[in-house]
Amino acid sequence: MHQSLLSTTRSLWPQSARRSARTSSVFPFLAATPVHTRYNTNAASNPQLSFPCLDAIESRTRQLELRFASEGPEPSYTTGAHETFTSKSPILLDNGGVLPEFTIAYESWGRLNVDRSNAILLHTGLSASSHAHSTPKNPQVGWWEKFIGPGCALDTDKFFVICTNVLGGCYGSTGPPSIDPADGEVYATRFPIITIEDMVRAQFRLLDALGIEKLYASVGASMGGMQSLAAGVLYPERVGRVVSISGCARSHPYSIAMRYTQRQVLMADPNWNRGFYYGKVPPHLGMKLARQIATVTYRSGPEWEKRFGRGRADPSQPPALCPDFLIETYLDHAGEKFCLEYDANSLLYVSKAMDLFDLGQKAQSRTATKRAENQPKLTSDVPKTDDPKCSLMLPAQPYQEQPRSGEAVSATPPQDLVEGLSALRDHPTLVLGVTSDILFPAWQQREIADSLRLAGNRKVTHVELGEDVSLFGHDSFLLDLQNIGGSVGRFLGE
Amino acid sequence: MHQSLLSTTRSLWPQSARRSARTSSVFPFLAATPVHTRYNTNAASNPQLSFPCLDAIESRTRQLELRFASEGPEPSYTTGAHETFTSKSPILLDNGGVLPEFTIAYESWGRLNVDRSNAILLHTGLSASSHAHSTPKNPQVGWWEKFIGPGCALDTDKFFVICTNVLGGCYGSTGPPSIDPADGEVYATRFPIITIEDMVRAQFRLLDALGIEKLYASVGASMGGMQSLAAGVLYPERVGRVVSISGCARSHPYSIAMRYTQRQVLMADPNWNRGFYYGKVPPHLGMKLARQIATVTYRSGPEWEKRFGRGRADPSQPPALCPDFLIETYLDHAGEKFCLEYDANSLLYVSKAMDLFDLGQKAQSRTATKRAENQPKLTSDVPKTDDPKCSLMLPAQPYQEQPRSGEAVSATPPQDLVEGLSALRDHPTLVLGVTSDILFPAWQQREIADSLRLAGNRKVTHVELGEDVSLFGHDSFLLDLQNIGGSVGRFLGE
Repeated sequence: MHQSLLSTTRSLWPQSARRSARTSSVFPFLAATPVHTRYNTNAASNPQLSFPCLDAIESRTRQLELRFASEGPEPSYTTGAHETFTSKSPILLDNGGVLPEFTIAYESWGRLNVDRSNAILLHTGLSASSHAHSTPKNPQVGWWEKFIGPGCALDTDKFFVICTNVLGGCYGSTGPPSIDPADGEVYATRFPIITIEDMVRAQFRLLDALGIEKLYASVGASMGGMQSLAAGVLYPERVGRVVSISGCARSHPYSIAMRYTQRQVLMADPNWNRGFYYGKVPPHLGMKLARQIATVTYRSGPEWEKRFGRGRADPSQPPALCPDFLIETYLDHAGEKFCLEYDANSLLYVSKAMDLFDLGQKAQSRTATKRAENQPKLTSDVPKTDDPKCSLMLPAQPYQEQPRSGEAVSATPPQDLVEGLSALRDHPTLVLGVTSDILFPAWQQREIADSLRLAGNRKVTHVELGEDVSLFGHDSFLLDLQNIGGSVGRFLGE
Repeated sequence: MHQSLLSTTRSLWPQSARRSARTSSVFPFLAATPVHTRYNTNAASNPQLSFPCLDAIESRTRQLELRFASEGPEPSYTTGAHETFTSKSPILLDNGGVLPEFTIAYESWGRLNVDRSNAILLHTGLSASSHAHSTPKNPQVGWWEKFIGPGCALDTDKFFVICTNVLGGCYGSTGPPSIDPADGEVYATRFPIITIEDMVRAQFRLLDALGIEKLYASVGASMGGMQSLAAGVLYPERVGRVVSISGCARSHPYSIAMRYTQRQVLMADPNWNRGFYYGKVPPHLGMKLARQIATVTYRSGPEWEKRFGRGRADPSQPPALCPDFLIETYLDHAGEKFCLEYDANSLLYVSKAMDLFDLGQKAQSRTATKRAENQPKLTSDVPKTDDPKCSLMLPAQPYQEQPRSGEAVSATPPQDLVEGLSALRDHPTLVLGVTSDILFPAWQQREIADSLRLAGNRKVTHVELGEDVSLFGHDSFLLDLQNIGGSVGRFLGE
């Protein structure tokens, strides 16, 4: 996925830094000294295993160090070939953080009509930029290239399509790699925790600036499917219809678990340095490992069974602990492609925002209360540090097995979610899911559709693509032009 | 899982080394210098996030360093309270490695009858020891405590039950932490690649020594379910009946992917040091991260939805990148429990053996050819090193997207597997699966049963526990005494 993002930034990093697998015996990160200098393997019963995949990591680290030493500061992740909107008034975030100002990068396709009623806001997945489609400024293929254009799912003959890089991202919008205007230093992990709703509020500041009072539609897949719903819930009067693809109304524990392991792996890379790696070698190994885990969740077992089976990269070689099976080289490649293309802190913050997503009524009420309490932060000079609440401490007692609730998992959505989505009771809504998706399982899209119907919405279209239609799991939204694109096009044209 | 293993070794490590979360500002691993010494956060827009989970890791590393400095060599992972069998004749391994001698740790329950016909060989999962049930020597609760005993699923009034620690493990059997007799140094990653079949061959040497010509049954779950089948295929005349629970006849790409990410994460820990960490601080962080990923695959999303939902450890605290949601604290705890209880190299080798498992006829034939070629290694002095085939090199070209085969995933098992399992065509076989298992999905057990039936076996019992019966996923075999234990007991008593 995200081919386009990769190609836009690829030139920033020397190809050699990615591919070279020379052994380093001087760089201290990971065991660089070949083990056979310590052990006489000729006397051993068996030869020492070799680890070319670790050699490659060490080599990249060393090349990045040299590059930083000779060429100065780290590259930008973005091409810069997009529009920007900067809000000079501060934004209060759901968890009490404040950004004194912020920038949103965006791109658009089609033309805004005279009464400004034909705008579609397209929301991205976790790591995508605003570059959903090629532009005159940036001819690179976009991440939804075939879904946008004249006569396409997002028909630019009819609609004015806007896509933004999310708040917290690294493709031109304000995020952890940005400078905190308060002290002129990079935010890093002094960036406040953000939510999906915070991203949406920032997007609507952009819409204000563009003079768009009401969207024809809010459209998105994956994290974008969350944002799409959130836009309708936060601004029901400013959204005409909603398309939510492979998204959810509240993150569930399995998805949180999968993202948690990615974050932990990334944070364990010594180069992450608690977020302060700017101007130094970034945590490329942690990013690679995190992306490999993520990639497991983007497709499906049956697809891999069909595509890779038990094939090995080179059946003439003995088995190895470095990539060996085709599925392993596929994951390795996915990690390699990504590890220098996205900011590590952006990944942590945006991933966390996904975990925090919950459109249930109780969560919305709690957030509203917090926001009211924190409102003075926007105007007065409330001290920002030394607030004990700002530092999570581990519980004094480690996790204890909880007594089970005994509640059966219900086939009907919780009333809390029905109430939480009631702002959308009159909005035509398309909910799309894919049976083979393990990250946002199909029951989560059914839950959205059922909740909306129970809230009284009679204009809900729910489509679930079975395993006979798509084995591509979560990634189907990037790949299935016919079924995903077709459904979206029909719904928007109705 | 594996409570018993943990408790057997817990005392080896100071409690304080696990729980303490003091911040270290001197230890170099991970960013130890508090960031606020570098940035004046009072001037910043928002406070710096805190990372108590990283503080805890650093603290443990430092305490382990102190411990090694003051108390000497690393602890053994095993209690030693088991029997051992040592084979002084070498064993040739499937991928060409040779162990000049090896030891198998084992425990047993019940009594071998006069004609030695009532023995059941119980195979373990990846990280379990031979301690399946308490013994006079070791009263700790075993990992299948309630499944073994008079009148239990494995009825010790009738049967003589033997459980071994697998070859490659760290609970008393020969594995990477053992000494290579050829040079008196620890094997580490000079240990040869092993297979499930190698483990089984080592077990049958033990049976030879015990004078057991034929097993009443071969029984196992998870990796043990692989071994159980392999025993029957390798030694059809020495196995009476087969029980394979939540196992498979060949590993599939999703399982390989999940284990691959665990291995990569572990190998990325600088303390792993390419396997040569003995006598130093072990890669406890890599082990913790790997175990957290593994734990995601041991249960099911629906179980977590029911048990944790979106609950947070402390809802009064703001969101954090360290464990925060209950599901995160659960994973963190699972990682903490495990990270010093099992040998990192054993994990790598045994995990890899699972990936390599394939009882298809083609794979069996290839292995037979390799074994014949390597046979001279057992007797002559073939040079063991500088064989280019012993070092896997990364392919010169990185992974390229493959054209799809277009083959539909078939509902019937491949002929290759039918032929590969034909040695079991007369064996009464019980195959148990769990619908909620994501690591060894239920289609893999159906595949075993269907293959056996197509091979002509008329004594196949296939039981699949639906989501209404167990939401515990892969771990059901440790938890569901009634359904798993009940089925096993009935089958063995028939």
